[in-house]
Amino acid sequence: MKRAACFGEIMMRLNPIGYQRFLQAKEFEASFAGGEANAAVSLANYGVKSSFITKVPAHEIGQCAVNELRRFGVDTSKIVRGGDRLGVYFVEKGASQRASKVIYDRAGSAISEAQPSDFNWPAILEHEDWLHFTGITPALSDSAAQITLEALQCAKELGIYVSCDLNFRKKLWNSEKAGRVMGNLMQYVNLCIANEEDAADVFGIHAEGSDLTKGVLNREGYISVAKQLKGLFGFDLVAITLRESLSASINNWSGMLFDGQAYFAANYPIHIVDRVGGGDSFGGALIYALLEKYGKQRAIDFAVAASCLKHTIEHDFNMASIQEIEALAGGNASGRVQR
Amino acid sequence: MKRAACFGEIMMRLNPIGYQRFLQAKEFEASFAGGEANAAVSLANYGVKSSFITKVPAHEIGQCAVNELRRFGVDTSKIVRGGDRLGVYFVEKGASQRASKVIYDRAGSAISEAQPSDFNWPAILEHEDWLHFTGITPALSDSAAQITLEALQCAKELGIYVSCDLNFRKKLWNSEKAGRVMGNLMQYVNLCIANEEDAADVFGIHAEGSDLTKGVLNREGYISVAKQLKGLFGFDLVAITLRESLSASINNWSGMLFDGQAYFAANYPIHIVDRVGGGDSFGGALIYALLEKYGKQRAIDFAVAASCLKHTIEHDFNMASIQEIEALAGGNASGRVQR
Amino acid sequence: MKRAACFGEIMMRLNPIGYQRFLQAKEFEASFAGGEANAAVSLANYGVKSSFITKVPAHEIGQCAVNELRRFGVDTSKIVRGGDRLGVYFVEKGASQRASKVIYDRAGSAISEAQPSDFNWPAILEHEDWLHFTGITPALSDSAAQITLEALQCAKELGIYVSCDLNFRKKLWNSEKAGRVMGNLMQYVNLCIANEEDAADVFGIHAEGSDLTKGVLNREGYISVAKQLKGLFGFDLVAITLRESLSASINNWSGMLFDGQAYFAANYPIHIVDRVGGGDSFGGALIYALLEKYGKQRAIDFAVAASCLKHTIEHDFNMASIQEIEALAGGNASGRVQR
Amino acid sequence: MKRAACFGEIMMRLNPIGYQRFLQAKEFEASFAGGEANAAVSLANYGVKSSFITKVPAHEIGQCAVNELRRFGVDTSKIVRGGDRLGVYFVEKGASQRASKVIYDRAGSAISEAQPSDFNWPAILEHEDWLHFTGITPALSDSAAQITLEALQCAKELGIYVSCDLNFRKKLWNSEKAGRVMGNLMQYVNLCIANEEDAADVFGIHAEGSDLTKGVLNREGYISVAKQLKGLFGFDLVAITLRESLSASINNWSGMLFDGQAYFAANYPIHIVDRVGGGDSFGGALIYALLEKYGKQRAIDFAVAASCLKHTIEHDFNMASIQEIEALAGGNASGRVQR
Amino acid sequence: MKRAACFGEIMMRLNPIGYQRFLQAKEFEASFAGGEANAAVSLANYGVKSSFITKVPAHEIGQCAVNELRRFGVDTSKIVRGGDRLGVYFVEKGASQRASKVIYDRAGSAISEAQPSDFNWPAILEHEDWLHFTGITPALSDSAAQITLEALQCAKELGIYVSCDLNFRKKLWNSEKAGRVMGNLMQYVNLCIANEEDAADVFGIHAEGSDLTKGVLNREGYISVAKQLKGLFGFDLVAITLRESLSASINNWSGMLFDGQAYFAANYPIHIVDRVGGGDSFGGALIYALLEKYGKQRAIDFAVAASCLKHTIEHDFNMASIQEIEALAGGNASGRVQR
Amino acid sequence: MKRAACFGEIMMRLNPIGYQRFLQAKEFEASFAGGEANAAVSLANYGVKSSFITKVPAHEIGQCAVNELRRFGVDTSKIVRGGDRLGVYFVEKGASQRASKVIYDRAGSAISEAQPSDFNWPAILEHEDWLHFTGITPALSDSAAQITLEALQCAKELGIYVSCDLNFRKKLWNSEKAGRVMGNLMQYVNLCIANEEDAADVFGIHAEGSDLTKGVLNREGYISVAKQLKGLFGFDLVAITLRESLSASINNWSGMLFDGQAYFAANYPIHIVDRVGGGDSFGGALIYALLEKYGKQRAIDFAVAASCLKHTIEHDFNMASIQEIEALAGGNASGRVQR
Repeated sequence: MKRAACFGEIMMRLNPIGYQRFLQAKEFEASFAGGEANAAVSLANYGVKSSFITKVPAHEIGQCAVNELRRFGVDTSKIVRGGDRLGVYFVEKGASQRASKVIYDRAGSAISEAQPSDFNWPAILEHEDWLHFTGITPALSDSAAQITLEALQCAKELGIYVSCDLNFRKKLWNSEKAGRVMGNLMQYVNLCIANEEDAADVFGIHAEGSDLTKGVLNREGYISVAKQLKGLFGFDLVAITLRESLSASINNWSGMLFDGQAYFAANYPIHIVDRVGGGDSFGGALIYALLEKYGKQRAIDFAVAASCLKHTIEHDFNMASIQEIEALAGGNASGRVQR
Repeated sequence: MKRAACFGEIMMRLNPIGYQRFLQAKEFEASFAGGEANAAVSLANYGVKSSFITKVPAHEIGQCAVNELRRFGVDTSKIVRGGDRLGVYFVEKGASQRASKVIYDRAGSAISEAQPSDFNWPAILEHEDWLHFTGITPALSDSAAQITLEALQCAKELGIYVSCDLNFRKKLWNSEKAGRVMGNLMQYVNLCIANEEDAADVFGIHAEGSDLTKGVLNREGYISVAKQLKGLFGFDLVAITLRESLSASINNWSGMLFDGQAYFAANYPIHIVDRVGGGDSFGGALIYALLEKYGKQRAIDFAVAASCLKHTIEHDFNMASIQEIEALAGGNASGRVQR
Repeated sequence: MKRAACFGEIMMRLNPIGYQRFLQAKEFEASFAGGEANAAVSLANYGVKSSFITKVPAHEIGQCAVNELRRFGVDTSKIVRGGDRLGVYFVEKGASQRASKVIYDRAGSAISEAQPSDFNWPAILEHEDWLHFTGITPALSDSAAQITLEALQCAKELGIYVSCDLNFRKKLWNSEKAGRVMGNLMQYVNLCIANEEDAADVFGIHAEGSDLTKGVLNREGYISVAKQLKGLFGFDLVAITLRESLSASINNWSGMLFDGQAYFAANYPIHIVDRVGGGDSFGGALIYALLEKYGKQRAIDFAVAASCLKHTIEHDFNMASIQEIEALAGGNASGRVQR
Repeated sequence: MKRAACFGEIMMRLNPIGYQRFLQAKEFEASFAGGEANAAVSLANYGVKSSFITKVPAHEIGQCAVNELRRFGVDTSKIVRGGDRLGVYFVEKGASQRASKVIYDRAGSAISEAQPSDFNWPAILEHEDWLHFTGITPALSDSAAQITLEALQCAKELGIYVSCDLNFRKKLWNSEKAGRVMGNLMQYVNLCIANEEDAADVFGIHAEGSDLTKGVLNREGYISVAKQLKGLFGFDLVAITLRESLSASINNWSGMLFDGQAYFAANYPIHIVDRVGGGDSFGGALIYALLEKYGKQRAIDFAVAASCLKHTIEHDFNMASIQEIEALAGGNASGRVQR
Repeated sequence: MKRAACFGEIMMRLNPIGYQRFLQAKEFEASFAGGEANAAVSLANYGVKSSFITKVPAHEIGQCAVNELRRFGVDTSKIVRGGDRLGVYFVEKGASQRASKVIYDRAGSAISEAQPSDFNWPAILEHEDWLHFTGITPALSDSAAQITLEALQCAKELGIYVSCDLNFRKKLWNSEKAGRVMGNLMQYVNLCIANEEDAADVFGIHAEGSDLTKGVLNREGYISVAKQLKGLFGFDLVAITLRESLSASINNWSGMLFDGQAYFAANYPIHIVDRVGGGDSFGGALIYALLEKYGKQRAIDFAVAASCLKHTIEHDFNMASIQEIEALAGGNASGRVQR
Repeated sequence: MKRAACFGEIMMRLNPIGYQRFLQAKEFEASFAGGEANAAVSLANYGVKSSFITKVPAHEIGQCAVNELRRFGVDTSKIVRGGDRLGVYFVEKGASQRASKVIYDRAGSAISEAQPSDFNWPAILEHEDWLHFTGITPALSDSAAQITLEALQCAKELGIYVSCDLNFRKKLWNSEKAGRVMGNLMQYVNLCIANEEDAADVFGIHAEGSDLTKGVLNREGYISVAKQLKGLFGFDLVAITLRESLSASINNWSGMLFDGQAYFAANYPIHIVDRVGGGDSFGGALIYALLEKYGKQRAIDFAVAASCLKHTIEHDFNMASIQEIEALAGGNASGRVQR
């Protein structure tokens, strides 16, 4: 069985029930999520020996986060306990012309205040085949960036394959700092995952012919972005997700894998249940497919089908099974009842 | 007032709330349902003196099933009490490309272990005008098949009109056995209700030109199936439901009644709330329309409009009123608020 | 800061959870709503000093209504306390071909039995810039009609701008009486808000070329209605909402402002979350825009965008912010997540 | 099987969830209840052929009330449909020193505005063995009082045994009118059920030695009240419930039956789940016991045990089974798990 | 009408539903609370013109806190908007031998990072009669302590009566720092509210003869504490709450007011619904009673009865009415249903 | 770290919300539980490397059971997947005089139909220090009894300490068969856990002087039972739980450990939240204490305090922490809020 480690933050996600706005909520559903934690759960669902590395407080709320990862089969034995608080984020589900809204409350979280000495990377990564992180983690704090760097250096020494989802968060840092810090980390990365906005925000890479606010898909533009990313940092692979946002209720969703050649997956029109975590589920599925030595086309088909299904599932974690994903990737999108 | 009896199983249906997957659920909504029970409730809603015949355990969970039938006006006085358990089934609601999922847990239920001596059919059917069952009931067990046979024979003697919804369940039996057992029962049936898959699965009847996985509607194909069914068993009437599954969220829905001539209803594009029980609601509405001597075209229009509305209603029972159905069948599909 | 007063009824709204029908409900969500109360909340949300005038019982259920208004920033200090009951209305949410349903239980409410002596209009309206009411209020009872008349006369004396949403309710009165009573009140009204049905039901004003049951939009028809209304009563402005009801799940929504010249807003296709209160949110937003001296085109754009967003929000009150409305009015309908 | 009819009002009961106060509630549990309806459900639970007589609106909310009665086995075929509204009452559950609170909103209900011509008593009561009503029904309106009178006269002619629970409601009428109207009805009553307050409020009958605000039980006082009631109206039987209210969470509960001789039941200390409907469950159980010819001591033991258990059950209807009641009446109050 | 201002923090309170532990929760009830905010709501409930002073973020979660205060009639117009986050605290309800648990997550909250320049005290306090704060506020941060000091100095200049609830929080500071900071503030305080632990933790004041872990009440000990407090700082009044914790489900509750002479209220045995906010409700009620010039005995009776009732009410805010409090203070603790 | 394995059944537990009866429930809370699974979760909570051995179906409902165990840290890697169904049991919570009710629906479950060949005991038990089972497991079926026997024989060979909770279930087998099967298994058992009823039902061992229906505790009787059990089967240790059931709301709870000498723990009066799983939590805690080499008195004190706390926690799993248990065992039962 393959092994993969994901490093990053896990937060408590609080969302009002159904389509209630924050201003109407008297109850919040509590789940636990984070870019890399979402990927870790996907990997465990697919049967990968998946472990998640972070730091969470020693109190019960921290334990809840650990428990939720365990529930879905993620190895939590390497999670460091300590620090003051678990990050929180609030999600309000949009509909039609009303956009979903996310309010982050993650400053001062245990992982953002963790120190390099908290993590003994050679021991943590000893048996791993893959290490995954996102651009959110080094954005949390300078110490988090330093820890990330040490993790990557250790991974390189151990010959571990590294993937990174650029995932730019403008609330955490600006493009200038992101470009500088992330630019330095990219030398250790084998697979780079991005969407068009990330590439522009972090590295100033733009493609012609697409206007995101209009949500127009443009294959040539995406290839152009991937080519530039690969050229700049020498990635083995670049993967790009393609979202066409018709409204908060209906999106078109696809993706591309690029190794010099571009492999495009089918484009799915989605009635959205919950789109948060969609990109992370793409990353988790792609890592699985590559760990399992799927061919490039099959890998991107799997990753896009998996993340398509995530949009139909509440909360961040992707609960789609391999069987369901393969069926969709194989062309069965009819949604007929399975008895 | 007309009287109709439905014979079959009633189960506890457990579904997670909203679009939660089984793996996420901490609470289940409990309702009670079953192919024939669903039809019985439809009939009671339309004002037919509807009774339901089954066997349920003497404990409180069995009583809950009885109570739910009573709540909607079904006569439960002929239900036999005893046996060990009430069947259960779990329903997970799909969305977009993610299919709904049903897990049955019905083995060993009171009705599946009932014996012919439990039912005194001449007394049960004494005043009835109609008897309805589905292909699920004889599939439950050999004794259930035997009880069904005795019910049909009794109905024939009493001159009661008999309808059967083929409703093939591959988890309960295989096509070979289904064909044999159902083939023997068909001689007592006046109205046969099916969808294209059932006809193929139970009797090996196929139509050219339709591909269900693509969900393509083909009028000629449906007529071909109905003709073959009628030819084989001499039914007075064959009714076929037509579902085009665009996704788990959007279906097209229609139906056809065939007495030598084919009567097609309008085709409704549906935003689905809960599609389980859709076929049963078609059967219930059609029986009502025929009991009330609607003309063929009006009957199929009523049945298809009724079952279209069922898809917008949670749980299996169809809570649409005659007035609402007639309005829709009459062409008002605008969904404007009724004040 | 501008000030506006709304006069009318506030009721307890009870709706089953999600898409449950009345016949299935064991719990009801309780919110508080009413045509003018909804507008008052919109105004407070936009920063107007908004007050609501009504009469509610002195008991806790009445207090709940007051509290809900206070929660959203409405001044409730002029609400009269007393009378026997708070009106109630039940809402069942429709889907697809199944229409939403509203059952009113408002007879005998405190405001419908209030007496003119309950309201000291010169004191109530002393500092106000605007007075808003709807055709529901004078329909409640003869005394409510009399109170409304006195309010309008006082407003006129104080030079307060008056708006009226015609809002015909056939359960409260018939067209003949509505036409007579409302006809008398219109002389005090500056801005008249209506939909095509209201104009026909209250004043017998029809437009050619539109068939509401088919939901077909016809710009010329709407202009014709506005012109007739303006001609008949000398309104400064007429605003008309344009709803094309494709189903209970999907509506097209737009609106027009008319001052001799017609200003049309964009037409929004909406996936509906809750459409009750949609018209009231149009009124509230339009009043705000006019109080703030928006130009005519910008005012109707704002009002239609605001009420478009209301359709994506549970319950009657419009919780959309100015920022969200301006973004939509400015053309961003992509519903992309706001982080 | 014995038959009993109960005549009165059924309302929608709305209560916040758990211990929330009205001022905190965003959802209400909806159940259906009323003094006589509660008794009718008890009777059906015990296997009596129980029917309920009332008038409810023809709309869905009225149908919900009918359905809830049917659910628990009550015959609703004699319920008159029509009128404007179903009465509503709001219940807030108390705890410890905080009392439960009930707000009635029943004015203008269908039954309170029903006319004598709505009820054909000879047909309604034709096969009945027992007729039950409470002092609430004649208090609803003069026409309701007149209908009650006609029902009682008819019962007398048919030789039907009549029971009445005095149930004084000061919000509906005052003692003077209650005494006059009820005094006239008592000639038709065989069994009178009361608590000490009712006897005082309706007929001015007082007992020495008990102070209700202190909740002190006094056996002699209760006997004195029963004796006076029996003496005044010639009842066959008088039953009195004895509540000692230590707090909203803990009550002592007992009862007495009096036929010249006094039969006291055990006194139960109760941890209260929901005490509304406690008295009605006493009445329902007592009627059952007397219909079944229980001896006097066994009858009062059964009635008190039944109503003790009601206090542990949510909402008004008593869901305790005969088996549970007999076990408690037989002395097993240990509450050990039944597996 | 009297006016009072409360200054401090308001947080989002998140608690699992019912008796669920943190480790079991999938949903949290969200309310808003804080020592001084709780008192402000009590004051508004009693009809005082109550305003709350704090700083909350400009985003929707901050607005929710504002809205909840407005809902209960608190003036929020002086609340400063800005900063990064709203403090959060998690509450797990205990039962029997299992204690309730509170986890604070308030570091970095807007109020704890607020600066003195955020508050213009002369303008804020201009029309106030009373200023209330607790020992939590100066404990939040040095700047919060400085702001508190400036508020108190301004209050003194304006002749405003000042109350302080000592409320020691060991998670926020230690006794040494608390003693130093609070000691300096006490010169501005007229009414000091404390429990025995606070007096010991903040000022090292102990009473003989009481052992809190055993929860034994000792009147002499409380008087001794009050005397020492008054002696040390020259308070006009000292109020002490007396809690005897028999278990998490049952507490005895009383209080004392001391002006040289000791006034004890009744001692209430309470079945606890939610005890968080109990002390704050005592403070709010006492302030009201003193503002309204109640006599000392009546004031402490009112405050203890009010806070007794708070223990029967979910969440921190006390929703008891003056009428209910007076009834309990007057001796009616029977909890009989109020109809 | 110590290791312990528990072998038995895990079921889906379905209970209505709060105090609702089965007949009232429209939703059920779903948790997962079973005598040995409950103990396994306790052990994991205390930090033991705890694994659970069973067989569950390969479908999602089976996966839910696995996930819930993983969530609380139990090793599920040795669980066999397959079979038809997961057992279900329904729990209705009692209150006051109304007993809790359990309806089992476990016939045909995967574990009851498992075969000896499904379990490779030498591999399963290879590294274990302890094996725990209850009398429920061999009662499930003859094959389950055979599997249990093989597990015990293997444990003996490997020198693993074995504990058994007698746990007689009269719905699964009768005393005669239980005595025969269990009698044969007892030779492998080191620690026997029982309550007085179990000893009587399984082995016909009675003690004088206690009457369970009266719930009277009698120390001498319990010692007598323990002595007889130890004498008959040569157990190292016998542990007995002592429950005095005052009502469904209040129980007294204690326990005794016997190794020739009797060690009694404190007796706790409990306000019950959920008493199902109370005995299992005693077993889990006792195993932990003995694995950790607590002295006898400390071990029984820990086990009784742990299981006392379980009664205050919803669902079967004991979520009490070691710290909480030690605090209670140390004498702090005041339930004061932990901040």
